[in-house]
Amino acid sequence: MDSATCLAIARAEGFAPYALSFRYGQRHAVELAAAAQVAAALGAVEHRIVDIDLRAFGGSALTSDAAVPKDRDQASIGEGVPITYVPARNTIFLSYALAWAEVLDCRDLFIGVNALDYSGYPDCRPDFIAAFQQMARLGTTLHDLTVHTPLAALTKRGIVERGLALGVDFSLTRTCYDPAPDGAACGRCDACQLRLKGFRELGLEDGAPYVSRES
Amino acid sequence: MDSATCLAIARAEGFAPYALSFRYGQRHAVELAAAAQVAAALGAVEHRIVDIDLRAFGGSALTSDAAVPKDRDQASIGEGVPITYVPARNTIFLSYALAWAEVLDCRDLFIGVNALDYSGYPDCRPDFIAAFQQMARLGTTLHDLTVHTPLAALTKRGIVERGLALGVDFSLTRTCYDPAPDGAACGRCDACQLRLKGFRELGLEDGAPYVSRES
Repeated sequence: MDSATCLAIARAEGFAPYALSFRYGQRHAVELAAAAQVAAALGAVEHRIVDIDLRAFGGSALTSDAAVPKDRDQASIGEGVPITYVPARNTIFLSYALAWAEVLDCRDLFIGVNALDYSGYPDCRPDFIAAFQQMARLGTTLHDLTVHTPLAALTKRGIVERGLALGVDFSLTRTCYDPAPDGAACGRCDACQLRLKGFRELGLEDGAPYVSRES
Repeated sequence: MDSATCLAIARAEGFAPYALSFRYGQRHAVELAAAAQVAAALGAVEHRIVDIDLRAFGGSALTSDAAVPKDRDQASIGEGVPITYVPARNTIFLSYALAWAEVLDCRDLFIGVNALDYSGYPDCRPDFIAAFQQMARLGTTLHDLTVHTPLAALTKRGIVERGLALGVDFSLTRTCYDPAPDGAACGRCDACQLRLKGFRELGLEDGAPYVSRES
């Protein structure tokens, strides 16, 4: 939902977006087929999926067989770094996006990180993004590159509102860290809890499939 | 030769180094077998080769079928960004190293960039490395990470001297951007020219194989 809304915002701001997804050994690889549908629905110029092997290093519940935490107290989500954190994941994602941007001679990167209703990952925070932008300007020929984070100041509720206003079909998007084999969301991991909160606060139903829907 | 000397320096400084190489679609993939030999010879704890597909993006003579420049005036090497520059390559390399470091709980990264006798790549310069370190500290749990660049202030001559003093067998190392199928170096690309200059200034022979040796 974050990437989809981010893409819709980039388009609404007049950019012609090239969309990039990663097959990184995540247990929720069902998000990749969803990303292709979302990219097409929102008019991306091109959508690529790059294979990167983060399972080679491990270190996260998302890229190993360690259990994904469920039913955590929502007040504690975002405090401390949880086991679903994937070491240096956004740094690697942004580095590939930077490479593609430099080949395309693009000056703008968009990433749908948010720092309000989030899981406490260090690589979602605004100071990290600002430092990445500075590093990218120095390490490439794109000396005026800007890394845009249009969701950084939005709550999950705000992201749902903004996405709906821009025509995002959230029923196409996948958020769950630990989906069933058929792609249905668990409804209980941190990512599901944050997503469901966004819809609930707006009095809306989430159209995505769930194994056991919270009432 | 740079990575080998960098590894030898890390060991000499008391570190237990984990060595990381990349199969990134480079036309000089012969360097990977050499890297495995060098890592073993210099006592790396472990050596891994990670597959990353930079050919998917292109944009460089090293990852496409574009010609590698030969016989360039040595005075012009390092001025401007040449076609052998691979967009965001060191950013991606360092990002993977960062991920592995975080899994291993290591606080020190070493990279053999040099900024004196070099090819003019923006991602070799000290200000880029400093910015990467800052970004890495903010984007991971390694808030006291240091990125070491022990070759940054050395000429190629100085790198050869330092490596030899630490027991590096340079005949094992591979530098050429455009080697023959049997692995012999061309002797004419920027990388070969800089390497040969280092040995020549010391009055030494380079023990690595060349297609046509400069006299």
